[in-house]
Amino acid sequence: MVYNLAIIGFGTVGQGLARILVNKKDLLERNNNFKFKVVAISDIIKGTVIDQNGLNLAKFLQDVQKEGKISGIKKSDFSSVEIIENSAVNIVVETTWTNLETGEPGLTHIKKALALGKHVVTTNKGPIALAYNELSKIAKVHNAFLGFEGTVLSGTPAINLALRNLAGASVKTIRGILNSTTNYILTQMETGTTYRNALKRAQTLGYAEADPKMDVEAYDAAAKTTILANVVMNGNIKVTDVIRKGITDITVHDIRTANLKRKKIKLIAKVWRENGRIQGQVSPKALSSTDILANINGTLNALTYSTDLLNDVTVIGRGAGGIEAGYALLSDMLALNQKLIKNF
Amino acid sequence: MVYNLAIIGFGTVGQGLARILVNKKDLLERNNNFKFKVVAISDIIKGTVIDQNGLNLAKFLQDVQKEGKISGIKKSDFSSVEIIENSAVNIVVETTWTNLETGEPGLTHIKKALALGKHVVTTNKGPIALAYNELSKIAKVHNAFLGFEGTVLSGTPAINLALRNLAGASVKTIRGILNSTTNYILTQMETGTTYRNALKRAQTLGYAEADPKMDVEAYDAAAKTTILANVVMNGNIKVTDVIRKGITDITVHDIRTANLKRKKIKLIAKVWRENGRIQGQVSPKALSSTDILANINGTLNALTYSTDLLNDVTVIGRGAGGIEAGYALLSDMLALNQKLIKNF
Repeated sequence: MVYNLAIIGFGTVGQGLARILVNKKDLLERNNNFKFKVVAISDIIKGTVIDQNGLNLAKFLQDVQKEGKISGIKKSDFSSVEIIENSAVNIVVETTWTNLETGEPGLTHIKKALALGKHVVTTNKGPIALAYNELSKIAKVHNAFLGFEGTVLSGTPAINLALRNLAGASVKTIRGILNSTTNYILTQMETGTTYRNALKRAQTLGYAEADPKMDVEAYDAAAKTTILANVVMNGNIKVTDVIRKGITDITVHDIRTANLKRKKIKLIAKVWRENGRIQGQVSPKALSSTDILANINGTLNALTYSTDLLNDVTVIGRGAGGIEAGYALLSDMLALNQKLIKNF
Repeated sequence: MVYNLAIIGFGTVGQGLARILVNKKDLLERNNNFKFKVVAISDIIKGTVIDQNGLNLAKFLQDVQKEGKISGIKKSDFSSVEIIENSAVNIVVETTWTNLETGEPGLTHIKKALALGKHVVTTNKGPIALAYNELSKIAKVHNAFLGFEGTVLSGTPAINLALRNLAGASVKTIRGILNSTTNYILTQMETGTTYRNALKRAQTLGYAEADPKMDVEAYDAAAKTTILANVVMNGNIKVTDVIRKGITDITVHDIRTANLKRKKIKLIAKVWRENGRIQGQVSPKALSSTDILANINGTLNALTYSTDLLNDVTVIGRGAGGIEAGYALLSDMLALNQKLIKNF
């Protein structure tokens, strides 16, 4: 089987995937029995191209790097939705921007694709945080695959780890460091750097946006917490249900005071069940230095699933980056492929 | 589909699985679409029973706990191999003892089952460490599934994490703490306890055998290192190829000296490629206290895969225990089932 991919959104993540696909095409075919063509790329700024015979990805990556646009070949007037509807497409790669209020335009893209029985892989937190239960039902009805590994720890296995590797065990609580920007800032502050200077450094290094609110006020971590709550613990909570406190009030003094007690301040996400209801929280916590999460520094992320049969299982890895997020999309497609190919 | 399981070997691990299967039968059917009967149990000491309609597992667990034997129902004279050959059996659960020299009797059991196209799940390190490449070929030829998650890190995802979740990425090096007994002893020694006393405590707690050689002289970790080398990095090494040094020479003085330099002594397994060849080593190393592995204490195990696309991915969890190992077998069966059931 040859998969026909449409990449909707060609920013850092879409380009990260494209780069991997260019570099690993032969390896993926040989080692993973994964054959693909990219038949469409659609980006609201960079333009849209379609070629049912398969686009020359390497060329588009060059174009975009040089000119910020897809150029040099026949453009298409089709909208992203029309591309998704195109009968040649069987995997929709959704990597448009995250909107935690409406989920759009990703939500429409994903619904449309699943309703047509097309498989979807996405790193877009918006639609999954806002509408996982609904999307999951549409996927089930149309027997389509919905992969979203990259929404929580980027390419580091987190979602599929819970759904596949920990299947049959019951996850009782989840704790984690889910945001790289804030973990970088807090780690910098351990050395005496002020919050303001640590944030500036994070911005210079590209870890934080010009408007850092999504990260430092923990909206990003709250969205990821919602996803974990609904996907891994069968919750039905909204992003706004997550008790949320960011790191903007944390001072070097707070960190020093914690250190004197052999503690580290970390922005900790938590999901638990209370009176039969799933609850989520993100807030700064002073962790004992023997806590594994206390020793996760810089841009690393970590996630601990506390289970009935295995006690705690912790995974640690990078939680951001274009290649990492691109890999998350690939790993979802390979999970789909492992399911569809005949041999073990 | 209803799977018909034969459990070969009914020690701690086989009983751990049985306990989970008794407790979770309904949940596994409802949540994981996994339906099974245990049609045979065969143990060289405890006896053998067969019932094609499905054995009463709860009863056998009671029997074994009370009398150390399977009793009260018609015994069978069939050998373990004859049970594997029985046409009713389609999953062979191999949990006999580990023999790192011959792999027997597990090796014969697994070969026989795979050659008949039967699926195999095992926690038995011997056959996988000695003959993975051969077994993997037999499995491929007969399109049978060979699951062995529990051979490294017990139920904590390790093997399937590499083969499934990290598919498409390339693992460049592996480092880990793969043996619980030695990590417990070294952690005890951090508080000033002598090696001899720490070993005694480990024996009292059931973490170490009366003859602790397999653990403290790192044969167990070397077997796991071999498995990782051959399975995850496509090596073709023997257990005896692994450069091996145990912890019997480590003194409290060594540990104090390391601590003064902010280091921790851990028994570290490593797999890497050198001049195109895969190499394995297990030996005590003084790790910087900022190294994630330096902070893995007590009976916890950990494993870091260094990859091309994700940098380091680390998983931490329990590396031993009857329930944990039983869960490893279940997780392999659920991976098989996820592949065979039609829906996503």
